[in-house]
Amino acid sequence: MGKKENKKSVEAITSMEEDFAQWYTDIVKKAELIAYTSVKGCMVIRPYGYAIWENMQNILDRMFKETGHENVCMPMFIPESLLQKEKDHVEGFAPEVAWVTHGGNDKLEERLCVRPTSETLFCEHYAQIVQSYRDLPKLYNQWVSVVRWEKTTRPFLRSREFLWQEGHTIHATAEEAIEETERMLNVYTKFCTESLAIPVIQGKKTESDKFAGAVATYAIEALMHDGKALQAGTSHYFGDGFAKAFNIQYTGKDNQLQYPHQTSWGVTTRLIGAIIMTHGDNNGLILPPAVAPIQVVIVPAAMHKPGVLEKANEVLKALKNAGIRVKLDDSENSPGWKFAEYEMKGVPVRLEIGPRDIEANQCVLVTRHNGEKTSISLENLVSGVQEKLQQVHDGLYQAALENRKNRTYQCRTIEEIQQALETKGDGFIEAMWCGEESCEDEVKAKTGAGSRCIPIEQKQISDVCVCCGKPAKHMVLWGKAY
Amino acid sequence: MGKKENKKSVEAITSMEEDFAQWYTDIVKKAELIAYTSVKGCMVIRPYGYAIWENMQNILDRMFKETGHENVCMPMFIPESLLQKEKDHVEGFAPEVAWVTHGGNDKLEERLCVRPTSETLFCEHYAQIVQSYRDLPKLYNQWVSVVRWEKTTRPFLRSREFLWQEGHTIHATAEEAIEETERMLNVYTKFCTESLAIPVIQGKKTESDKFAGAVATYAIEALMHDGKALQAGTSHYFGDGFAKAFNIQYTGKDNQLQYPHQTSWGVTTRLIGAIIMTHGDNNGLILPPAVAPIQVVIVPAAMHKPGVLEKANEVLKALKNAGIRVKLDDSENSPGWKFAEYEMKGVPVRLEIGPRDIEANQCVLVTRHNGEKTSISLENLVSGVQEKLQQVHDGLYQAALENRKNRTYQCRTIEEIQQALETKGDGFIEAMWCGEESCEDEVKAKTGAGSRCIPIEQKQISDVCVCCGKPAKHMVLWGKAY
Repeated sequence: MGKKENKKSVEAITSMEEDFAQWYTDIVKKAELIAYTSVKGCMVIRPYGYAIWENMQNILDRMFKETGHENVCMPMFIPESLLQKEKDHVEGFAPEVAWVTHGGNDKLEERLCVRPTSETLFCEHYAQIVQSYRDLPKLYNQWVSVVRWEKTTRPFLRSREFLWQEGHTIHATAEEAIEETERMLNVYTKFCTESLAIPVIQGKKTESDKFAGAVATYAIEALMHDGKALQAGTSHYFGDGFAKAFNIQYTGKDNQLQYPHQTSWGVTTRLIGAIIMTHGDNNGLILPPAVAPIQVVIVPAAMHKPGVLEKANEVLKALKNAGIRVKLDDSENSPGWKFAEYEMKGVPVRLEIGPRDIEANQCVLVTRHNGEKTSISLENLVSGVQEKLQQVHDGLYQAALENRKNRTYQCRTIEEIQQALETKGDGFIEAMWCGEESCEDEVKAKTGAGSRCIPIEQKQISDVCVCCGKPAKHMVLWGKAY
Repeated sequence: MGKKENKKSVEAITSMEEDFAQWYTDIVKKAELIAYTSVKGCMVIRPYGYAIWENMQNILDRMFKETGHENVCMPMFIPESLLQKEKDHVEGFAPEVAWVTHGGNDKLEERLCVRPTSETLFCEHYAQIVQSYRDLPKLYNQWVSVVRWEKTTRPFLRSREFLWQEGHTIHATAEEAIEETERMLNVYTKFCTESLAIPVIQGKKTESDKFAGAVATYAIEALMHDGKALQAGTSHYFGDGFAKAFNIQYTGKDNQLQYPHQTSWGVTTRLIGAIIMTHGDNNGLILPPAVAPIQVVIVPAAMHKPGVLEKANEVLKALKNAGIRVKLDDSENSPGWKFAEYEMKGVPVRLEIGPRDIEANQCVLVTRHNGEKTSISLENLVSGVQEKLQQVHDGLYQAALENRKNRTYQCRTIEEIQQALETKGDGFIEAMWCGEESCEDEVKAKTGAGSRCIPIEQKQISDVCVCCGKPAKHMVLWGKAY
């Protein structure tokens, strides 16, 4: 890691057509989202990157609370014996946890892992506090970081430590727990659609791909600009498996002891990666207005001419008072430098204001995602900007949907999949599946496209499995994934 | 740890006169602030406890942002070699850190500690991003948890993992850094006073008690109900010691390479412990309105009589619309049970409303801290409740100030200290000090009262050291501490 490598700069970045991975890395560094550290596989989330996460947190936290959830905080450590209580769960996670073996100079009697996820801790707690049907449901969530000892890492997409929220709920009946699983999948979908301008497909994971210990895992899948899929959120239904492993029981209305049913669900900072790869372009980041730390930047022209800064400050104040996140850049850098800087940082709307604009009682509004320039009267500035921010959101969402549409291929044979990926580039494949894991594996081995999910909205592409030709059970969404 | 031990209950708690420590433990459990786990020395912060912390976070975070600070997120791990870069710092912290030695099944090449504090990571990052005077200051903060491998632990007061915020700033000059250290001490003072209703004394720590690696440590000290002191927040000035150890340099306006100056400052979840021990009584918790998850609870009387619940819901809606955190308890529990429950949980204001109240267009308002009962007209309910919440805050603050006044003793000799503590009980001692560590140690050995701080507001109790009789340099505030 070179010293000073994160120094601000508005040099050009690698184009995404030339090298998508390098384009991504250039953006996370030059938009000042992250910095590398000497802690391998971990990163610093810098103020601009963290502010995006804070905006996401605020929106999601409100959605969670509106649906009756409460925040808690569990320890970051899990004793090895506790992790081992649920067989599938420990098998899934033990190989990739970080182990604490010493406290100060003393060797611990029992190793502790740094939580990779907290089902086991929530279960231990639920066993303490759930006795009667009156104690149910418990709808808990926590905002923390977790650690998974990945071999290969990339900022936001896969790092050894990442930030997330993990919801953990416990219910009297299977029906209620299943309903919760679906509710939270819908919350995530609404969030991606309405706040991140990212279209997603809801589906169920196949058996081989579900969460360690779950009965069923649901996910939302998004398609990146390069045609690769990204899992944007998951919601798991556990049945009573964890309850049995952790001996959580409650007395029902019928006075009988029963096992409750559980769920968990989470989204992570990888959603920042999803934003970059869904909306970004060769000038840098493009942020959806709902989570942009700066929604509007004001760049004055001929800044030192009388009246310009005064007017710019008036505009600043008016927008701020309307609740818009706005910044006036009155630094000595040139307007051209500023344009490039805020383009790199993906600020959705730029306002230019100079002596001639002031004379005409207007300013110039430029939208980041399409470079559209319009004049906007200072009379109805606030409503004009608000309207434009909504248009930016809609424009981003439509462009992402269009990209997905252009990159979704319906295929009836493995050869068709191969051909589609080769001639049209990576994307989503809609193809039928018989339900056998061997066919799932074969499709992946031959085409590189794995099963992403069994979409909730099914289509009938054909009657037979794309691989073996036997009767099909589901349409599966296939793709190469981050 | 017994199963089901945290079950809700309104049984009486141990009285604080009988056993203050047990009274404290009873409250944290029965007010449902925490639960124990199988992770020794760590705890679950339950929804009601976490909501207090969220309210604190919201207020402090706004204060930090108003003073120009930005949030970031550093990794939770620190490589051993990085921790060792600053000599005093590693000596202070290495004996009490948790060490990660394995990732999955592989032994790590270098041990990582779980951060006990993050100076080293911030310094590494600053070395990357600070080049010129134009890059200064950086005013960063993060909200995370840290780990210190304590031998003896108590919920909120001392636990192996705790939640906090840590501010880390870097400045061009010593003057600016010292100003920042003072600014944040003032922010903490304002927060304790205006949001927690806890009076605090600002002071400087003696050499023996300052932060590992600091030039100077400032603290705010509060006095608990039992006369013991609690350090409620700290703000450190580092000079350029860390900058030299981590080779952070910037080019000044004069084009010369220079070392910048740094600070750090933090408050933790131990402030929840401070609230409990400052305001609580033998009926349970008492929460200052600014951070109470529920500021007002509405308890209907004769709930099933026509019109009662309708009116209670009207009251609920009116208060909610005014931004008051209010709850209507329309459960089937008896009013008496509800009274005890919300007293235990420290809800500042209770509203009782029944058929006769409705007839008189009023309700009964009871304040938790003094049991005062008043009738309040439904006409000006919102302003009446808001006014009462302010009175509650003022009342709590005055009572805490009164306790501190009654428990602050001015002493000229060690014998006077011993006598004061014996006859009047634990409290703050104001006594002079020559500046020698040996005297500091002797006072503590003989009286049990250690040096808490050298208050910024000095008094001249006498001219000579309380211990050795040599000329005094400062008045020191002494006390037994949590």
